[in-house]
Amino acid sequence: MAETDQALPPSDQLAAMNLTDTVEKHAFSDRVLIRSIVGRPDGGAGLAGQRVRAGGWVKTGREQGKGTFAFLELNDGSCPANLQVIVDAGLAVLSKLVATGTCVVVDGILKVPPEGTRQKIELRVEKVVSVGEVDPAKYPIPKTKLTLEFLRDHLHLRARTNTIAAIARIRNALAFATHSFFQEHNFLYVHTPILTTSDCEGAGEMFQVTTLISESEKLEKELIKNPPPSEVDIEAARQVVSERGEAVKQLKAAKASKSEITASVAELNKAKENLSKLEERSKLKPGIPKKDGKIDYTQDFFARQAFLTVSGQLQVETYACAVSNVYTFGPTFRAEHSHTSRHLAEFWMVEPEIAFADLQDDMNCAEAYVKYMCNWLLDKCLDDMQFMAKSYDKGCIDRLRMVASIPFVRISYTEAVELLEEAVKGGKKFENEVKWGIDLASEHERYLTEVKFQKPVIVYNYPKGIKAFYMRLNDDLKTVAAMDVLVPKVGELIGGSQREERYEVIRERILEVGLPLEPYEWYLDLRRYGTVKHCGFGLGFERMILFATGIENIRDVIPFPRYPGRADL
Amino acid sequence: MAETDQALPPSDQLAAMNLTDTVEKHAFSDRVLIRSIVGRPDGGAGLAGQRVRAGGWVKTGREQGKGTFAFLELNDGSCPANLQVIVDAGLAVLSKLVATGTCVVVDGILKVPPEGTRQKIELRVEKVVSVGEVDPAKYPIPKTKLTLEFLRDHLHLRARTNTIAAIARIRNALAFATHSFFQEHNFLYVHTPILTTSDCEGAGEMFQVTTLISESEKLEKELIKNPPPSEVDIEAARQVVSERGEAVKQLKAAKASKSEITASVAELNKAKENLSKLEERSKLKPGIPKKDGKIDYTQDFFARQAFLTVSGQLQVETYACAVSNVYTFGPTFRAEHSHTSRHLAEFWMVEPEIAFADLQDDMNCAEAYVKYMCNWLLDKCLDDMQFMAKSYDKGCIDRLRMVASIPFVRISYTEAVELLEEAVKGGKKFENEVKWGIDLASEHERYLTEVKFQKPVIVYNYPKGIKAFYMRLNDDLKTVAAMDVLVPKVGELIGGSQREERYEVIRERILEVGLPLEPYEWYLDLRRYGTVKHCGFGLGFERMILFATGIENIRDVIPFPRYPGRADL
Repeated sequence: MAETDQALPPSDQLAAMNLTDTVEKHAFSDRVLIRSIVGRPDGGAGLAGQRVRAGGWVKTGREQGKGTFAFLELNDGSCPANLQVIVDAGLAVLSKLVATGTCVVVDGILKVPPEGTRQKIELRVEKVVSVGEVDPAKYPIPKTKLTLEFLRDHLHLRARTNTIAAIARIRNALAFATHSFFQEHNFLYVHTPILTTSDCEGAGEMFQVTTLISESEKLEKELIKNPPPSEVDIEAARQVVSERGEAVKQLKAAKASKSEITASVAELNKAKENLSKLEERSKLKPGIPKKDGKIDYTQDFFARQAFLTVSGQLQVETYACAVSNVYTFGPTFRAEHSHTSRHLAEFWMVEPEIAFADLQDDMNCAEAYVKYMCNWLLDKCLDDMQFMAKSYDKGCIDRLRMVASIPFVRISYTEAVELLEEAVKGGKKFENEVKWGIDLASEHERYLTEVKFQKPVIVYNYPKGIKAFYMRLNDDLKTVAAMDVLVPKVGELIGGSQREERYEVIRERILEVGLPLEPYEWYLDLRRYGTVKHCGFGLGFERMILFATGIENIRDVIPFPRYPGRADL
Repeated sequence: MAETDQALPPSDQLAAMNLTDTVEKHAFSDRVLIRSIVGRPDGGAGLAGQRVRAGGWVKTGREQGKGTFAFLELNDGSCPANLQVIVDAGLAVLSKLVATGTCVVVDGILKVPPEGTRQKIELRVEKVVSVGEVDPAKYPIPKTKLTLEFLRDHLHLRARTNTIAAIARIRNALAFATHSFFQEHNFLYVHTPILTTSDCEGAGEMFQVTTLISESEKLEKELIKNPPPSEVDIEAARQVVSERGEAVKQLKAAKASKSEITASVAELNKAKENLSKLEERSKLKPGIPKKDGKIDYTQDFFARQAFLTVSGQLQVETYACAVSNVYTFGPTFRAEHSHTSRHLAEFWMVEPEIAFADLQDDMNCAEAYVKYMCNWLLDKCLDDMQFMAKSYDKGCIDRLRMVASIPFVRISYTEAVELLEEAVKGGKKFENEVKWGIDLASEHERYLTEVKFQKPVIVYNYPKGIKAFYMRLNDDLKTVAAMDVLVPKVGELIGGSQREERYEVIRERILEVGLPLEPYEWYLDLRRYGTVKHCGFGLGFERMILFATGIENIRDVIPFPRYPGRADL
């Protein structure tokens, strides 16, 4: 089955000589990317005759022709499609190649397969370079189709499945689209802190970060190995000090020589030092250090209580109020005990912040950003999107096209409530009562975007009572310049607002919602000194992936999901 | 001083009409970026006659001409250069505009200033749109030149200084260069977890993440408001149960009606339920929950001890061994009590991981990545680099050019030690002894890169005794396939290795260094099933910024530095 160069037609020989011009070799590896073969518009047919080295993991393999050769479907994660590889029995022990999950690196020649096969190209192997075997009886994910729930118990291997690999590529594409969008529009990427001593909206849901527990455990071990001095030890040391003191006194009274006195004083000092060390050690107590019955955070790593951030917004505002257009893209945390398919304890957020801009600008930016991401996926990830459409959500590609092309509906909160009330009159049942002043529930949001308008909807100007203190108070004194972007499939995708830039107004609002001023003094400084009209929003990155792919559970669109009771790896 | 349209020469009128064609308006704001004026190769001269709206903060301002007009140097963070703005006294109270830090938005017309001035263009204001005032007596950073150390106490305002703004733009550029480099080379960006239950290299330096303390404080408060039942309360409840039980028994013995018995049983059940509730509450104890004298982590948020990650490497390997080429770029943490100018408790790391690749590929990738970043800065941030060269480090631009163009020296650890020993023989003094087997100290690394070679140096094949268990054992059984990239100014910039892909060898190495196997079983699985040759490295992102800018203290190149005793905002 193997053929020699001599058997190739001249054009193929030429192609083989110019290999690097046509098949992209990976820059930091001696193999080619499988995508550079099967991801071509011609399915790779134009590469027939080229010699390549390919590496990847076997998706499915089978011995054929009574064991004279094997077919392997090889995938290296560069695209959803596999490369069909044909290995002759003379080149390797075929039974060691065919198990799902086996890693193989092979040299071979690309050939057009016989008429009637699905593939446009296949690789006839000339040499098996290396094999990473799999014992199929022990491999935790041997089959190609496993439930997403099952895979959550095998986080370290699940990226080897078609679904999780496709999600990884889509997630990567959306992340780079995010950076590209904001960079193209002159935003600076700012790394807001993960560790924070500011509490954005109430400490209830924050994870605490501390070294007090490990320090106290270290101390506990140390005290067992090396017990603290007893009262008797300390009394004895005190006795030594007093004796040495007496000795010095006597020498002085006796007008002893200077050197004698100096020596004696040195002895005294040594005794004093020893006593003070013992007294210090006697104060050491196992357990977390306390003061006045409360934990003594002055002894914690940052000399105060520290938490994991729930949002970078307040901090990134300090940069917006200095370099105008900024965004964060980083992990955020909620210590919520929610076990839903929409919540994670650790998730990624994108938070732009724009100076010299108002709520209209904010909505324009949010809409442009979401459309940009949709277009990016259609442009760069269509093969993965086709896989998602085939396997999970028929409508996902149409949804991207629709959102990318249709202007988002924009309605005020008041209009939204009127529409919901109309719907109720028309017989629509909601679990949560509809009236002006409520926070819109997910069912209301989904009704607006999925039923009423069947496209993205931006709701703006919410009642101030249900929104955060930093949102700009409108002239009606009842609503604030907030906006939420609702999209089919997930409901709320983005929440944002124009920020209150007037010092007196925001100070009043902080007090009104019952927060102390002191922790916000730095935030107030932004309004005290050179204040600027500004706005921003937050996009839950995993929600965007759910929206794009149609995947139901947020735990499947982040590589290492963290939720109550689980933080594997 | 204001001029009307009629006074403009015709070509300027035309230019004014075509404003959006020539001056870039910010996409989500009604102002133009100052960079789009003064950042042009002609310094903005070609825009004379155009009407624009500009916004920014006053760097310096002064009233002139006996108070008839004011000069403002306006900066919006889009570039290091300011726009010179001239405001007539008739348009605003000039004294309210000139203080450093004042935010102004103005409409005006661009004019070529009189001969002999530094500026190529200035903005003659026609209307002052808005002003965010500053009281210079109270403004914490009123002067334009303040020490970096002073600014660390004003994190929320320091981005308004030339230096911190320039660093923000350089940092942004390096971050996007990082993504661009890896995306161009077909790497997938993978978000490795921040919260982890794996301990990469020994728990000593990890921050613990917990909800136990806040939960116990919540409980403590609740128990004060609503004290737990006393033994007497419980005894009384027990009494009720026994009475109700007796009543049921009697009714049954008396063959009472079914409804009477049912009612009595219901009463009994209610009493039992009450008792069990009281018993449950009586078990509540203030303080962190313990079991067998140890903290009971099954009651913590993740049902086990959790930490902040020190590296995403082990986790990202699971993706490399599935989709081939990946990288992480995220925050990492060390609870080290180091107060040096080179350490942070929270810092950002870039960690690529490449499958089907060995140590040579790893070095090639690291060198190409560093060169790419240097070229990127020279190409896109030259104005900021010129500012750094002028203000902090004369040689920084030359250093970028040198690193971008010169091949990195590559020497083995053994050769490096020989060179250091030669240097010692030649009279060079090191604080740390030089001999084969030592971990190279910073002074050794800087000698090699700054003195001996005066260019970047990659040292590879280190003694296994000083390196991590996951690095691939070389055939000499004494060294591992590790490599460090050393650069002038900072020393070690990158550390990487080929990973041990052989199951038996890595298992042996884990035991050899005294680690338990169980927590690494998932990591071993990557070698058990479909193992692949792979390598990777980590780049400390802040070190790259120090290298590029010549800034001395790492606390000044991250927006919100965290170190022992400090985590402001």
